[in-house]
Amino acid sequence: MYPSSQSVNYDRAATMFSPDGRLYQVEYASKIVAQGTMGVACKYSDGIIFGADKKISSKLLIPESIEKMFIIDEHILAISAGLVGDARRLVGIARQKAQENKVYYDEAVQIETLVKEVSNLKQVFTQYGGMRPFGISFIIGGIDKTGKRLFETEPSGALAEYHAIAIGKNRNKAMELFEKEWKENLSKSATVKLMVKALEKGLDEKEKLELKRLQFTYIDSAQKFRPISQEELKGMLSNNK
Amino acid sequence: MYPSSQSVNYDRAATMFSPDGRLYQVEYASKIVAQGTMGVACKYSDGIIFGADKKISSKLLIPESIEKMFIIDEHILAISAGLVGDARRLVGIARQKAQENKVYYDEAVQIETLVKEVSNLKQVFTQYGGMRPFGISFIIGGIDKTGKRLFETEPSGALAEYHAIAIGKNRNKAMELFEKEWKENLSKSATVKLMVKALEKGLDEKEKLELKRLQFTYIDSAQKFRPISQEELKGMLSNNK
Amino acid sequence: MYPSSQSVNYDRAATMFSPDGRLYQVEYASKIVAQGTMGVACKYSDGIIFGADKKISSKLLIPESIEKMFIIDEHILAISAGLVGDARRLVGIARQKAQENKVYYDEAVQIETLVKEVSNLKQVFTQYGGMRPFGISFIIGGIDKTGKRLFETEPSGALAEYHAIAIGKNRNKAMELFEKEWKENLSKSATVKLMVKALEKGLDEKEKLELKRLQFTYIDSAQKFRPISQEELKGMLSNNK
Amino acid sequence: MYPSSQSVNYDRAATMFSPDGRLYQVEYASKIVAQGTMGVACKYSDGIIFGADKKISSKLLIPESIEKMFIIDEHILAISAGLVGDARRLVGIARQKAQENKVYYDEAVQIETLVKEVSNLKQVFTQYGGMRPFGISFIIGGIDKTGKRLFETEPSGALAEYHAIAIGKNRNKAMELFEKEWKENLSKSATVKLMVKALEKGLDEKEKLELKRLQFTYIDSAQKFRPISQEELKGMLSNNK
Amino acid sequence: MYPSSQSVNYDRAATMFSPDGRLYQVEYASKIVAQGTMGVACKYSDGIIFGADKKISSKLLIPESIEKMFIIDEHILAISAGLVGDARRLVGIARQKAQENKVYYDEAVQIETLVKEVSNLKQVFTQYGGMRPFGISFIIGGIDKTGKRLFETEPSGALAEYHAIAIGKNRNKAMELFEKEWKENLSKSATVKLMVKALEKGLDEKEKLELKRLQFTYIDSAQKFRPISQEELKGMLSNNK
Amino acid sequence: MYPSSQSVNYDRAATMFSPDGRLYQVEYASKIVAQGTMGVACKYSDGIIFGADKKISSKLLIPESIEKMFIIDEHILAISAGLVGDARRLVGIARQKAQENKVYYDEAVQIETLVKEVSNLKQVFTQYGGMRPFGISFIIGGIDKTGKRLFETEPSGALAEYHAIAIGKNRNKAMELFEKEWKENLSKSATVKLMVKALEKGLDEKEKLELKRLQFTYIDSAQKFRPISQEELKGMLSNNK
Amino acid sequence: MYPSSQSVNYDRAATMFSPDGRLYQVEYASKIVAQGTMGVACKYSDGIIFGADKKISSKLLIPESIEKMFIIDEHILAISAGLVGDARRLVGIARQKAQENKVYYDEAVQIETLVKEVSNLKQVFTQYGGMRPFGISFIIGGIDKTGKRLFETEPSGALAEYHAIAIGKNRNKAMELFEKEWKENLSKSATVKLMVKALEKGLDEKEKLELKRLQFTYIDSAQKFRPISQEELKGMLSNNK
Repeated sequence: MYPSSQSVNYDRAATMFSPDGRLYQVEYASKIVAQGTMGVACKYSDGIIFGADKKISSKLLIPESIEKMFIIDEHILAISAGLVGDARRLVGIARQKAQENKVYYDEAVQIETLVKEVSNLKQVFTQYGGMRPFGISFIIGGIDKTGKRLFETEPSGALAEYHAIAIGKNRNKAMELFEKEWKENLSKSATVKLMVKALEKGLDEKEKLELKRLQFTYIDSAQKFRPISQEELKGMLSNNK
Repeated sequence: MYPSSQSVNYDRAATMFSPDGRLYQVEYASKIVAQGTMGVACKYSDGIIFGADKKISSKLLIPESIEKMFIIDEHILAISAGLVGDARRLVGIARQKAQENKVYYDEAVQIETLVKEVSNLKQVFTQYGGMRPFGISFIIGGIDKTGKRLFETEPSGALAEYHAIAIGKNRNKAMELFEKEWKENLSKSATVKLMVKALEKGLDEKEKLELKRLQFTYIDSAQKFRPISQEELKGMLSNNK
Repeated sequence: MYPSSQSVNYDRAATMFSPDGRLYQVEYASKIVAQGTMGVACKYSDGIIFGADKKISSKLLIPESIEKMFIIDEHILAISAGLVGDARRLVGIARQKAQENKVYYDEAVQIETLVKEVSNLKQVFTQYGGMRPFGISFIIGGIDKTGKRLFETEPSGALAEYHAIAIGKNRNKAMELFEKEWKENLSKSATVKLMVKALEKGLDEKEKLELKRLQFTYIDSAQKFRPISQEELKGMLSNNK
Repeated sequence: MYPSSQSVNYDRAATMFSPDGRLYQVEYASKIVAQGTMGVACKYSDGIIFGADKKISSKLLIPESIEKMFIIDEHILAISAGLVGDARRLVGIARQKAQENKVYYDEAVQIETLVKEVSNLKQVFTQYGGMRPFGISFIIGGIDKTGKRLFETEPSGALAEYHAIAIGKNRNKAMELFEKEWKENLSKSATVKLMVKALEKGLDEKEKLELKRLQFTYIDSAQKFRPISQEELKGMLSNNK
Repeated sequence: MYPSSQSVNYDRAATMFSPDGRLYQVEYASKIVAQGTMGVACKYSDGIIFGADKKISSKLLIPESIEKMFIIDEHILAISAGLVGDARRLVGIARQKAQENKVYYDEAVQIETLVKEVSNLKQVFTQYGGMRPFGISFIIGGIDKTGKRLFETEPSGALAEYHAIAIGKNRNKAMELFEKEWKENLSKSATVKLMVKALEKGLDEKEKLELKRLQFTYIDSAQKFRPISQEELKGMLSNNK
Repeated sequence: MYPSSQSVNYDRAATMFSPDGRLYQVEYASKIVAQGTMGVACKYSDGIIFGADKKISSKLLIPESIEKMFIIDEHILAISAGLVGDARRLVGIARQKAQENKVYYDEAVQIETLVKEVSNLKQVFTQYGGMRPFGISFIIGGIDKTGKRLFETEPSGALAEYHAIAIGKNRNKAMELFEKEWKENLSKSATVKLMVKALEKGLDEKEKLELKRLQFTYIDSAQKFRPISQEELKGMLSNNK
Repeated sequence: MYPSSQSVNYDRAATMFSPDGRLYQVEYASKIVAQGTMGVACKYSDGIIFGADKKISSKLLIPESIEKMFIIDEHILAISAGLVGDARRLVGIARQKAQENKVYYDEAVQIETLVKEVSNLKQVFTQYGGMRPFGISFIIGGIDKTGKRLFETEPSGALAEYHAIAIGKNRNKAMELFEKEWKENLSKSATVKLMVKALEKGLDEKEKLELKRLQFTYIDSAQKFRPISQEELKGMLSNNK
């Protein structure tokens, strides 16, 4: 009769509804997403900035090998939160779709099209037996001929487009911050400052944000992704403009 | 002996009847539909008007990206309530069927034909193991050479044609309203007013309807869908005719 | 030891016999049939008359869209009771079989042949795992070169031919009526009157039969189905001949 | 420790032996056979006579449509007891085999060959998962170039040849009667009398045999099946020879 | 902790080992073998004699139709104990292999080769899910260019070659008898006498052996199987040589 | 909480890890291996000697038919311990691989290559559902162009190369003996003596080793297997050199 | 309610999330990895050194046959910890990929590419039913045109690149040591000394490290793997430079 005991009966297969119409396996997959380090992305005056917290568990680890930000195509980038193996697999499929689009239609794939393909695949893994849902959320964004585009896709296959978005641990706190402080046409450095503030929300209570854990990349009208170096980052954060 | 304990044994597979001849998984799928935001559609003097409540969970979210109303073909539109990932998948299949009809028979697919194809697919997902039913209801409507057509399809694969129909949360309250107040050949603005009233029934007790959450589209003898802008909407609602 | 507890062990798969040699899933499928609105058919002097109760849940619902009577071929008609999605699927298959018969043998399919094909398919769904039985009974009837034919097929795949038959809710009460009052070579209006009386048996205790819920169609030596309009129906019922 | 509780563990899959080496699902399938109306067949001086009790549940039912006796080929006939849907499916396969034999070898299939094909198919359904055994026993008999042949096949795939055989309800009582009274080279009418006596053993205690429920067919050296009409039947029963 | 309760967990799938490394389903299959009527075979001076007890449950049953001894090829014979449907299926496969050998290699298949093919097939049915082991043991024997060969194959796929062998009910008692009394180069009638004594061991305590239940066949250097008639049998048993 | 009760949950599928990272089904398969009669093999000055205990359950049994030592190829021999049906199947596959190597590469397969192929196949049967692990260990050895090679493969697919190895019942006792007494370049008869001593370790406490139960074969630089006859064996054991 | 009892429900299928978003089967697979003997690898001034502890269970075992270090390609080496059968299978696939790269692109495969292919395969085995995750972690490293590369891949499909890495038993203790003492551009012998110290951390409390259990291999700018012999090893360890 209690929610917790009732759930015992329906949460063991993605392909089963609970009596209140929920898919528990999909909800549990979202739990692993909510435990991942935070990723954020914001539109700014000239494009979109992407930022991620790459928790480095050992100083012997080479940070570049942490798979958190993925270039999908020249003009499309994804940030993941959740199971990194699942992320890599979906990214592999997304890159192939982007590639095929170029070959078949001789033009770059539109971001919305690609986001929907990824989301459709996620949905399939919630409807059939013999497989589990993907334990991954993505921010997928970039610039195409329709302009700046910035999406979130969830394990259920749901998707939505945002001006500013956060995924992973404490996502809601970061979103509240963005809702209060994000504005259209902020400058690049103001946006980066806001994003660093958001990423701080993703930390555990006693954790302290270290700049070197952060990775920032942006895309502007030149329609190429360019990393923001640690030096640039420090400059922006001390910049009062 | 009690309904709740008896159900424990039969509700875990779409492919199993309970002793009283019910398919619990299909009924549970209908629960998720009954939790979706409301969608409505009404015939009026010159065509059909479609309306939907797009609950916007964040002001950073771009309302257009909320998948609630889907153009299937030039003359066919669907509104969904339930799992948006499931909706997108069925819409994708429906669009392909419409496309194939044009290619093979050189004419637009009839609305009834398309509704039956979607419903048949839903039925299949209630009869075989290893998959769950689709957690989605659709209003599917438009105008074809047989005139104005307006259908509802349920997760079980059941379908019916209506003059005015509502799906999603508090569907029954909206249907009662329509049964009392809908009449054939109402004017466009009178119909829109009635539909807004219906959409208000879909809100939680303390919620207040905001016009900007609503999306309206209509089709008339020109056989193309045209959105009703927020301005037009306000005009119609203040219009006393 | 009690029947009800014993059944707990064997009723969860169509592909399993209970210790007393029963297939519970098939029996449960028959329960949903026994909850459907009634359908009836009777031979009369010149052909066969088909009648069905189409419960209209809303006055906004277009009665023609309620799928209860299905034309399978020019000379074959089916009435269903049970899951309408299941009915539509089997009707689709039956229509295809009828079509193929015309193409391959250049003549209309015999009614008995078609009934057996539908019944065989139903049987298959009671013998293999990973699928449930069809939750549907049909009256299938018409006139072919062997004369008037009128069959019932059940979820188990069992079939039988009748002079007068009822399916759905309170089937047995209607059959008792037919056994008492049906005679060969009754006139059309006398037969319709009897059938309306039978359909009244299918109602709940406090329900009252409304003529507009009823749909009647007949076939005679002209070997085409013709609907009986509400006016004709009223005429027949007030006719004392 | 008690048989009934021990069985609980092993009787849910045809593909599983119980600790004492039994296949419960096959035994349960035999239970449905033992509940079917009786069928009998006896060799007599000039051929074989087949008889069956066709319980008519309604006087509106057309007795010919009750599927109990099936002509497989010009010279082979089967009587079934058990699930009629299962019977029809196996008969369909048997007819096809008979047909193929004619096409490939240009001669009628031998009865023993056909009986073994049917039995082999039944065996397969007792060894693999995902399907249930056939709930049907057949008497299969006729005359071919090897003479009069009369077989019984059971749900397990076991078969045996008899001079006189009964299947269905109270089979053992009928067999005891045959063992006492059947003799080689009885006359046709003496044999029919014996068979009617046997069929009476298949009734419930208070039930009374009605001639019109019975169907008799025989085959003699002419190697064609000929029905025995109700008149002939009455004549034989009143005949004292 | 008790054997009987421990077994409850591991004996429901052929494809699962118990904690002590046993395959319970295979052991249970051997139980049905141990309940079958006895079959025996002994080498003698000039060849091999095969004998079987064909329990006749009814005097109306035609003994030849009881499937206990199977000619596989001109020079190979099998006796089965266990599920007769399973036996027939394996015999069918064995005959086909023998046939193929003749076609492909233009010579008769060797007995050992054939026995191994049958045993390999049995092994496969103990290792995969979705099927049960074959509930059958065979004596397979005959004479080929390597001389007299006499094998036993069990449900597990194990096989061994013997000078004298018994299968079925009370196998061990018969084997003890053979171990005491069988000698190489016994005469045919001395061997038959010994075999009848062995077959008596296969009876229930109060049962009495009837000669007519027994079937004997032998093969000698002529390399053809010849039945021993009831007359010859009686002659041999009364013969004191 | 106790090991024995904890195991109850994880030991029923080869494809499942227990919480402590074990594969119980594989461990149980090793139990059947540890119950098999012993097999041993030792390198000696000029080659490798193989020995096996062939428990003869009946004096009517022909010892050569006990499948314990298998020639895989002219230069490769295997001794099995465990389920003989499983052994025969893997040996069949190994022989085919050896054959294919000759056909494709025109040279004899290397022993290590063959051992790895067998081991890989065993591994596959521990990772997928719907099958059980092979209940068999092999000693596989011989001489190829890389010299004397002697391997053990276990049900898990693990393999290792040895100078002297034992498998089956009381393997560890035999290995301790070898570790103490085996030396490189022992003479053939000294090695055989040691191996007989090892085989004695495989007996039950009260059992006594009979020479006729033992089978010995060796391979030397001539690269062919030659059996050691019972006479040679006796000579070696009485030889004090 | 307690973690341990809660886990009981979700840890039996790789394809199922627990309510807190964990994949227990993957975690259990990591347990077997954590029980394997240690493997280590460190970058040094001129290349990478690989070291492994090969626990020798018997002095009759030939150490080279213990599969712990695998050459994948001329320039790529893997060390495994976990189930050796699983390791061999993945190594086989990796070698084939490396081979195909040469054939298709006419150049050696990049190390990162290969590591990702292996990791992707591991991920697949965590998402589908009917298979278990691979119970294996690898260190994969070498030198390609991008320089020195050194990766770890886990059963989940997660991967990361390191300067120095340890896998297997007591991995964390070894990593702590490396984090304290590893520096870029250490000399070969200093690095080997550090690695031996790390390998000692992988021993049980009372175990003592024996040099002969260790296997060391290195790769430098010559881009070939060269073993470090026991003599070289001793020299390096006594070397104080």
